[in-house]
Amino acid sequence: MARIVCKFGGTSVATTERIAAVAARVKKIADQGHEVAVVVSAMSGATDQLIQWTREVATLQDAREYDVVIASGEQVTVGLTALALQSLGLAARSWLGWQIPIETDDVHAAARITRIADAELVKRMAAGEIPVVAGFQGLSPRRRLTTLGRGGSDLTAVALAAALEADQCDIYTDVDGVYTCDPRIVAKARKLDKITYEEMLEMASLGAKVLQTRSVELAMKYRVRLQVLSSFTDTPGTFVVDEDEIVEQALVSGVTYSRNEAKITLTQVADRPGVAAGIFGPLAEAAVNVDMIVQSAADDGTTDVTFTLPRTDLERALKLLNGLKPALGFKSVLADKNVVKVSVIGVGMRSHAGVAARMFKTLSDKGINIQVISTSEIKVSVLIAEDYTELALRALHTAYGLDAA
Amino acid sequence: MARIVCKFGGTSVATTERIAAVAARVKKIADQGHEVAVVVSAMSGATDQLIQWTREVATLQDAREYDVVIASGEQVTVGLTALALQSLGLAARSWLGWQIPIETDDVHAAARITRIADAELVKRMAAGEIPVVAGFQGLSPRRRLTTLGRGGSDLTAVALAAALEADQCDIYTDVDGVYTCDPRIVAKARKLDKITYEEMLEMASLGAKVLQTRSVELAMKYRVRLQVLSSFTDTPGTFVVDEDEIVEQALVSGVTYSRNEAKITLTQVADRPGVAAGIFGPLAEAAVNVDMIVQSAADDGTTDVTFTLPRTDLERALKLLNGLKPALGFKSVLADKNVVKVSVIGVGMRSHAGVAARMFKTLSDKGINIQVISTSEIKVSVLIAEDYTELALRALHTAYGLDAA
Repeated sequence: MARIVCKFGGTSVATTERIAAVAARVKKIADQGHEVAVVVSAMSGATDQLIQWTREVATLQDAREYDVVIASGEQVTVGLTALALQSLGLAARSWLGWQIPIETDDVHAAARITRIADAELVKRMAAGEIPVVAGFQGLSPRRRLTTLGRGGSDLTAVALAAALEADQCDIYTDVDGVYTCDPRIVAKARKLDKITYEEMLEMASLGAKVLQTRSVELAMKYRVRLQVLSSFTDTPGTFVVDEDEIVEQALVSGVTYSRNEAKITLTQVADRPGVAAGIFGPLAEAAVNVDMIVQSAADDGTTDVTFTLPRTDLERALKLLNGLKPALGFKSVLADKNVVKVSVIGVGMRSHAGVAARMFKTLSDKGINIQVISTSEIKVSVLIAEDYTELALRALHTAYGLDAA
Repeated sequence: MARIVCKFGGTSVATTERIAAVAARVKKIADQGHEVAVVVSAMSGATDQLIQWTREVATLQDAREYDVVIASGEQVTVGLTALALQSLGLAARSWLGWQIPIETDDVHAAARITRIADAELVKRMAAGEIPVVAGFQGLSPRRRLTTLGRGGSDLTAVALAAALEADQCDIYTDVDGVYTCDPRIVAKARKLDKITYEEMLEMASLGAKVLQTRSVELAMKYRVRLQVLSSFTDTPGTFVVDEDEIVEQALVSGVTYSRNEAKITLTQVADRPGVAAGIFGPLAEAAVNVDMIVQSAADDGTTDVTFTLPRTDLERALKLLNGLKPALGFKSVLADKNVVKVSVIGVGMRSHAGVAARMFKTLSDKGINIQVISTSEIKVSVLIAEDYTELALRALHTAYGLDAA
């Protein structure tokens, strides 16, 4: 017998029919003798509609009132889910964030959970009751409703699992797990049985939209065993777990890519101390999120500085840099939007050399030019021309032995 | 400077445009130096949608979970209304039932307000803040959400006005006041400037759908001056007030009618003690709401018993009565659905004789046969054939001097 937190996203509770299906799934788990707590999101589309309304009534938003409006979506689904569970003969009751309470700070619209008072829930679960907890919402120190920001229901589930010391936190969504690569591009991509928190973090931050970075961080911090799985099939999903739990660690677990990239090169920048700060300071102040940086010195005392940034920030960054030209004294600004970042990720590379070399050779064999390289302990990323995205992903997937049999 | 509670119904907050219009109206009142508290319903249609969903997920309903779902509608509109007020430069904040709290009993889906903790609201209103209070909802002794039943937002407004000792409670709706008669039938119907609580109660229970009976009762109990007015025009509405406030009381304030009526006659019932109980006891147990009753004895020791009941209950009542035939020993059951109840209402008739006589003569002059009569202190009702509804209403409206000039 285990204690399990099950979280169902917006597509899983999008209609009353689907809510009934969620209830049937929870009953199956409860019938196996497990203690279950359920966390639900708002019906898919509901939150967007509510946000739209807040924009229509006010251009300058009071985030406290925004939260009051937005938090109503989960109130609908907890009540409906509790009713659906009851109609299958299960003891269930809904819990709004303020009723537990799920205490947060008062950073409205992006609050952080500070504490979950779980004693009452533990008692009721032991007595066979299934709590249905509203995701995404909490209570501020001033007793106002707060919300946790996009993907906040995942955070609620992980934090609740941590508070309840649950054996497992199942995140039901519309995909059936984490894949070695995007299956829409690489037909031979495989679903992973297990992946480490660190790898999942890298994948999440690289745009694999299965789990939000913050929820993975929280799960890692409290060692919550996460499972990502589909609410539309009965197949097991992918477990996100501690490194110790994975006996045979593959060298590389996945190949990912991000298209929201752009490259800027400043040519013939005077190569003197303080120049990097002169460039990247103003960009940081303008909240432009610079990612990879390369600097290559020439003989004439100047240097070329190349860096990448989100494609959506490019225009803003170019305007800013052109304004800085007199002060920094570079020759020209070159911009390129037709780039993609491709990464290989795996905790296995910590203890194995040659992972990066294999990547460079694979791409070189296909005639793909590498524009920028960056590495971390468990990741190697390269920037290449966007046209080569599919070719690069498939070649790397094969090169690291990830192809399905 | 007065303290005013303004309540806006579902049609008044049906869209974000209308919410902006509500905010503009509230600003006008606040700009005159009044202290204002706002109560809002859910967007029209929203509550019906939520109820529909609860029915889809569960046939047997847990009213506590039903309330969680249903109460979300007002959460949306308080937030949006607060935002709209803020965008006009007013200090405003939303208040959910549990935040004030509006304490109720735990009769979910039909809760009664037991107490409103208004100290914080009074303090903030004195400081110029406009509280936007969710109608229809409260907090049970067990800290669960409750709702007050249909028309509950009116109740919230009246109870809040009583707690705040407000000078006035304005109920904004989609009609512009209370009329002497249904203007769709009697073209010369006039809007009343003032009407007493007692008269309003009779009108409400007779089907004039402007205000729910419970809110009028509550207003009468706490002497809350109500105004019913339109949120779509700028004309004054109808005040519902204490009798003392109306200097020149008309003999009759209004003529109303109800089409949801049916008549049943049991012929040749044995005229012995206990027969009435034998008939009306089982009907009451079956929750059939019997209204007017007439009994007319014959020479042969039998009696005919005639009574009226809601047309919607007729089939059920007939079935029940036919089952009782052996026990009660009546000869036959006659039923008539083509009847209407027409009433004249006015506190003036307390001190004036001849009101009923004038009604009977007026109808007689038009050749309209009166089937059943019932009277109360401030009301005379007659049952007539439905075909004569319009004729009767117009004739009575003229006879009592109610026609617009």
